[in-house]
Amino acid sequence: MDYNKRSSVSTVPNSAPLKVGFIGLSHQKGWAVKTHYPAILQLSSQYQITALYNPQLEVALETIKELKLANATAFPTLESFASTAIVDMIVISIQTSYHYSVILPLLEYSKSNPNLKYLFLEWAMACNLDQAEQIYKAAAARGLQTIVSLQGRKSPYILRAKELISQGHIGEINSIELTGNGGWYGYDRPMKSPNYIYEMGNGNDLVTNTFGHTIDILQYMTGSYFSKINSMVFNNIPEQDIIDDHGQKTGQKVKKSVPDHLLFQGTLMRGNVPVSCSIKGGKPTKKFTKNLVIDIHGTKGDVKLEGDAGFAEISNLVLYYSGIRANDVPVPNNNKYPTEPKNDMNMYDAGKEIMEVYHLTNYNAVLGNIFRLYESIADFHYNTKKIPSLPSQFLLQGFEFEGFPTFMDALIIHRLVDSVYQSHLLGSTLDVTNISQLPNFNS
Amino acid sequence: MDYNKRSSVSTVPNSAPLKVGFIGLSHQKGWAVKTHYPAILQLSSQYQITALYNPQLEVALETIKELKLANATAFPTLESFASTAIVDMIVISIQTSYHYSVILPLLEYSKSNPNLKYLFLEWAMACNLDQAEQIYKAAAARGLQTIVSLQGRKSPYILRAKELISQGHIGEINSIELTGNGGWYGYDRPMKSPNYIYEMGNGNDLVTNTFGHTIDILQYMTGSYFSKINSMVFNNIPEQDIIDDHGQKTGQKVKKSVPDHLLFQGTLMRGNVPVSCSIKGGKPTKKFTKNLVIDIHGTKGDVKLEGDAGFAEISNLVLYYSGIRANDVPVPNNNKYPTEPKNDMNMYDAGKEIMEVYHLTNYNAVLGNIFRLYESIADFHYNTKKIPSLPSQFLLQGFEFEGFPTFMDALIIHRLVDSVYQSHLLGSTLDVTNISQLPNFNS
Repeated sequence: MDYNKRSSVSTVPNSAPLKVGFIGLSHQKGWAVKTHYPAILQLSSQYQITALYNPQLEVALETIKELKLANATAFPTLESFASTAIVDMIVISIQTSYHYSVILPLLEYSKSNPNLKYLFLEWAMACNLDQAEQIYKAAAARGLQTIVSLQGRKSPYILRAKELISQGHIGEINSIELTGNGGWYGYDRPMKSPNYIYEMGNGNDLVTNTFGHTIDILQYMTGSYFSKINSMVFNNIPEQDIIDDHGQKTGQKVKKSVPDHLLFQGTLMRGNVPVSCSIKGGKPTKKFTKNLVIDIHGTKGDVKLEGDAGFAEISNLVLYYSGIRANDVPVPNNNKYPTEPKNDMNMYDAGKEIMEVYHLTNYNAVLGNIFRLYESIADFHYNTKKIPSLPSQFLLQGFEFEGFPTFMDALIIHRLVDSVYQSHLLGSTLDVTNISQLPNFNS
Repeated sequence: MDYNKRSSVSTVPNSAPLKVGFIGLSHQKGWAVKTHYPAILQLSSQYQITALYNPQLEVALETIKELKLANATAFPTLESFASTAIVDMIVISIQTSYHYSVILPLLEYSKSNPNLKYLFLEWAMACNLDQAEQIYKAAAARGLQTIVSLQGRKSPYILRAKELISQGHIGEINSIELTGNGGWYGYDRPMKSPNYIYEMGNGNDLVTNTFGHTIDILQYMTGSYFSKINSMVFNNIPEQDIIDDHGQKTGQKVKKSVPDHLLFQGTLMRGNVPVSCSIKGGKPTKKFTKNLVIDIHGTKGDVKLEGDAGFAEISNLVLYYSGIRANDVPVPNNNKYPTEPKNDMNMYDAGKEIMEVYHLTNYNAVLGNIFRLYESIADFHYNTKKIPSLPSQFLLQGFEFEGFPTFMDALIIHRLVDSVYQSHLLGSTLDVTNISQLPNFNS
């Protein structure tokens, strides 16, 4: 495990912590207080929350008080927040449908802040490809190092699988099957569940959200984008039953416009590998199959990932590996950075059949993957891994082990999601070879 | 289990056995002597082999001697075989690539045999849709009752699954995933394996053979044809390694033109159900997944079928069922024939969660499914189930529990196989709603 060990940031760097300005952190509820906040708290030598913005100033003030954010200031307007010089990094964790309207003015105002270096945004980075392109372009023009929370890339299971695959331990990949069953978008809708999740166009649908995260993980593990795809998108449950806190039907029904099922198949560019994928909403069953199963078959072995929930990026997984450690296993060094000297394991185990089950019993994946994303940003910022001539900014993570996903990585997923909807609407198999190309906008 | 119990033919009917003329039975080797022959032997009150035809007369004569076929005559020519009146039923079990050239003249010659009533042909019924249509048409014009060995329909596991589904025990089907891994068409080719299996156009390819059988079974279980399909066909292994009897590579390589992988996805007409399907060649791995897995999910439960080999029609399977036996379970009587009185199980178990594992440890599926097909033909011929006003001939089995698959059932699968190749070549999702329609040939 070369790439999967603990980050180097646990020691205190000889430098001041990164000053974080946060939009969307509230002590009352939400994703940020369950994930970003504890991650930053555990990395207090590397990060410090210095600014909060909330359209309701009192929420920001209360949050500072309740979370004891001693160094934080609540800003009354987006402009004052974006232009203050006490912020090195802005984190935006708000509803996807607000991304576009907040980020464009934010980037404009931020020109007054000479210290701003990082912009960290949640996936799905806006509601659609067009908005995502504009956000990408504006952030690039502003010269920021972007980060997007495609945090599945930081899952220890995904990194271990990527490592096994890239080091040739399953030989050449020759087929992949993926099935996911998420709890949302099914027959029932919990009373407290917000309506926007179920309405098309808000960037929270099964394809953009569930499939987006999952297929990013798959591409990352295999080190390949797709060359050809076909998809069929279903809304077979146009009406949901409202259920109460005890799971009982209230008798009320509500309309649903987001899909509840996606069939996706395609070929990976690298190796022309067939990939079969079925992602659905609805109540998970758990009887005879896990709610997430990713089977990656190779000429010399298999990797299987299983999870109780259909969301790989926030689930604790189990990784099964079976293969043969052969003399001729290639050990590519794709990450371009120097790796540590190889030990003699390969020699010792040559030709031996190996099986491995990898599971961290108490791993909190909801927090853990976000935490590891913050670790990676700190590793980059403080260059704790002592990478020689590390660039001050990079455009995309691509399939590197080090680093973190950027707006460009997110844009590639948005293009794939867009192609999925297009393939469905056109009834065509689409060539998507070009979606991993860098953008060429006419500005 | 109303439909899955033993056939009624084990008692001796008050009638003479059906006289069978066989093309393709040889005592030396082949499929027929392992399946058709022991099936007929076990049903000796219902069937008697009276005629054999082989282009090499001595093979037919030897086979009669070796298999002790006391009542059989070897015919020197196809014409003499086809026109003899001592045959009620012709069984053809020869290489698919010979079907077309044998059957058309056979049907012409058979006009001299007033007793001929049944024509039994192996799947794939010729090499392609065009040949299959001509064979269908000629057999229909000759007025024969046709039978095709889509014998997976007779598997006890398939029938039990069909029963569970049709009686509503898993509610409404809402998604299906199917993966199959066959031993053929992979990286290795056994020395003794005939070349025609690996050459495109012989009707033995992964799509026509493996997928054809499997998708017929899936349609049969669910009671629905497809409305929309997309497929991608791969020949990622254009060259195979020849291996010897001990599985060792000889160093020799041979070209392969048949596909080694099929990605197929589509929607069932009934319920717009998403179906995801990945069928591949290659060496089965058996580590983390069975070589055949069919997951049928419903609103009230699941049915899972697993097999060690990717060929459902010749494999002993395991069926897992989980569901809720509810008061309101509908019990449709789609088979139009009277069923036995219901017992009180439904009442007794109302609302109870039920799990079932169904497996016949010593079931020989290779022989068993063919045997049960012969049983069904005998049941029909002798009307052992006392079905009132049973027609003397029927065009297709469709999704009936009783009966057996006909040339029309085979033609529907040929149309689907043809659409699979078309979808791949055109890069399109195809509307296949019409392929289950009865043919309208201009004669």
